[in-house]
Amino acid sequence: MSIIESIEITPIAFRDPPLLNVYGIHEAWALRTIIEIKTVDGHYGLGESYGDEQTIGQLRAMVEHLIGMDVFCLNEIKQKIASVITLPDPNSGLEIAPGTLGVTTVPRIFSAFEVACLDAMGKITQRPVYELLGGKVRDEVPYSAYLFYKYESHKFTDDPWVDKWGAALTPEGIVAQAKSMIEEYGFKSIKLKAGVFEPQQEIDALKALRQAFPEHPLRIDPNGGWSVETTKALLSQFDDGLLQYLEDPVPSKKSMGEISAVTDIPLATNMCVIGFFDVPEAIKLDAVQVILSDHHYWGGLKATQELAQICKSWDIGLSMHSNSHMGISLMAMTHAASTIENLSYACDTHYPWQEEEVIKGGKIKFKDGAVVLSDKPGLGVELDRVALAKLAENYQNCGIRSRNDVAEMQKYDPSWTGTVPRF
Amino acid sequence: MSIIESIEITPIAFRDPPLLNVYGIHEAWALRTIIEIKTVDGHYGLGESYGDEQTIGQLRAMVEHLIGMDVFCLNEIKQKIASVITLPDPNSGLEIAPGTLGVTTVPRIFSAFEVACLDAMGKITQRPVYELLGGKVRDEVPYSAYLFYKYESHKFTDDPWVDKWGAALTPEGIVAQAKSMIEEYGFKSIKLKAGVFEPQQEIDALKALRQAFPEHPLRIDPNGGWSVETTKALLSQFDDGLLQYLEDPVPSKKSMGEISAVTDIPLATNMCVIGFFDVPEAIKLDAVQVILSDHHYWGGLKATQELAQICKSWDIGLSMHSNSHMGISLMAMTHAASTIENLSYACDTHYPWQEEEVIKGGKIKFKDGAVVLSDKPGLGVELDRVALAKLAENYQNCGIRSRNDVAEMQKYDPSWTGTVPRF
Repeated sequence: MSIIESIEITPIAFRDPPLLNVYGIHEAWALRTIIEIKTVDGHYGLGESYGDEQTIGQLRAMVEHLIGMDVFCLNEIKQKIASVITLPDPNSGLEIAPGTLGVTTVPRIFSAFEVACLDAMGKITQRPVYELLGGKVRDEVPYSAYLFYKYESHKFTDDPWVDKWGAALTPEGIVAQAKSMIEEYGFKSIKLKAGVFEPQQEIDALKALRQAFPEHPLRIDPNGGWSVETTKALLSQFDDGLLQYLEDPVPSKKSMGEISAVTDIPLATNMCVIGFFDVPEAIKLDAVQVILSDHHYWGGLKATQELAQICKSWDIGLSMHSNSHMGISLMAMTHAASTIENLSYACDTHYPWQEEEVIKGGKIKFKDGAVVLSDKPGLGVELDRVALAKLAENYQNCGIRSRNDVAEMQKYDPSWTGTVPRF
Repeated sequence: MSIIESIEITPIAFRDPPLLNVYGIHEAWALRTIIEIKTVDGHYGLGESYGDEQTIGQLRAMVEHLIGMDVFCLNEIKQKIASVITLPDPNSGLEIAPGTLGVTTVPRIFSAFEVACLDAMGKITQRPVYELLGGKVRDEVPYSAYLFYKYESHKFTDDPWVDKWGAALTPEGIVAQAKSMIEEYGFKSIKLKAGVFEPQQEIDALKALRQAFPEHPLRIDPNGGWSVETTKALLSQFDDGLLQYLEDPVPSKKSMGEISAVTDIPLATNMCVIGFFDVPEAIKLDAVQVILSDHHYWGGLKATQELAQICKSWDIGLSMHSNSHMGISLMAMTHAASTIENLSYACDTHYPWQEEEVIKGGKIKFKDGAVVLSDKPGLGVELDRVALAKLAENYQNCGIRSRNDVAEMQKYDPSWTGTVPRF
């Protein structure tokens, strides 16, 4: 028995560059929560989740209920969360991050604890997490270069920090960003976050990337920022195999189905299929050909494997989505992805955009664009408690309590609404 | 590392009563295979699978390839099986047991080894298998009383053994059988294997069961033995809530869909949905409302959990199918079922029909129709090597090498064809 003795829930904030997207712009600080579970037999496990106030409150509300439970009893923990958690009003429209609606509350909260329990189970059994998930089928997990249009610096912050990447507001700027990122990380696939400028400028950026990187699969993600009409009019520009997949051009299953009916370009999503409850309708409408999994809201690493079985059974592609995150989440993603044969695309990660870390040894190294699995127990990472304390202090001081890209952009442009589709 | 040092594949035969079904009649001996995996660090794990020659050959062919692999690396073992196994000619029509087609070869062979590896993993980590599957959500797993029409004894065997159950060839005989079985085991649900007699006689048996057991949910399984027309004509007799579900009245997804279109009675199957490859079409046709899982051919205990996620996502019921089996399979079924919240029906089992066992302590006890989980490591059972040797000798002597209910019935009735639908 490996009974949970205590759980620490630590909100953190780390610097985030002024990255642009269809909703607006990233704020100067990104929020996360670090979960640490300790067992009575002296083991511990780490998890990482969103850092918005709603999630922090829900995680904290679970602590007293989970103490006394066994870290191996994940299904019981899930039932406990489902029985205790207060679901937000479904009509509130509350979002914790783009694409992460209130209806995914139980999977989201469970996931945070599941990862921490799996890490503890690994440390207890002296097995890497991937072996507790059935074993890896690949020794390293490839990630994509996740490009953003961005300003050089945040205009509305007192913090003097400026990221190292510089501005990227044109096709040339995007190519330069890709070159820097690929030189440093070795990525072999490229994703462009779009929906920021007129579609033609963004497609021109894609074409410039194709010229600069003739062998790299390319993806573009307007975050539902295009209308059905706009998207249909753009499709012919992708016909030459420019795209590996087109991510969320339009904002709903119905509209995605309208696009997929008129193109052979695979449509991907992390916005209109965000939980198992979305899958039946998506399949019925043939709305998506690639699902971007995300253990943080699908319900954990085992749930990601279950999603993979669905994708395999219906011949739907499977890739992986990312928000701003630290190394605990990167390793959780990597362990899960290493066990799934049909997770055959390079995964997305925001990781290059972060400079800070909460794990010992600092940022995780990439080898040729991939994270290499080790045979260390659990997730294979340990907390740097000094770094954690510093990032926890950032959280206390930064003043941000929920991510709000729209409000941040309104500082630059008071007329900004963040409404999609934009184009 | 818990490396596989050796694998023993032992075919066994045990006495089986003359049970009738739509194909014909059970032979005097039922066949299974016991799998024993030993690791270099002195642990072992048990599995159980089909005992037909094809399966035995495929299991044995894998042994040399699996030695040297780690019992925790299930996904790698699955890939190895997929890369090595010789698939039967898809046009051969080869069946190893009713509903168990050649196309399920890899899941079937993997399942046998997966269960043995999970048992070993449990013994290594000192955890019950259910904890390696995420933990149980129930402490005991209910099973149903699985009733068969049957003769008193086998007519065409030299073996003097006669089962204790007596003949059951009428509604009264079925009720008497149910009373004996429920008295001994405490089952709280009843399943009648049908397709043997004219449907009206079998429905009369159901109605007699309803009178004798007013609180027990009832199921009937004609094994696809009825035509669409016959089934439609019978539906009104089930309208008063007589049935919990109607199992495989007709023999294909298309014909099941034709029935489900005209009734609210849930249709169940273990015949037209026997692997993940069947699920998309079944859902498209709304062919089934309850899937009867069976880890032996769905691909193991984790695959059963993945099927459960599909059933949950599409609001399809989930129950569990059984062939003739020993206690290793009973415990594998029980561990899996204990972890799945939406496996909410009593599972089927042939177990009461068997008198012999290969595990220490003899036959597993039922408490009020359920198998109670213990916290013993692994599956919680150990091999009785004397009993195993005896059943292995039975296999050598019994002369049966593949189950053939049709040929056995042809001994009684030379004109018998076993063709479905019969009625």
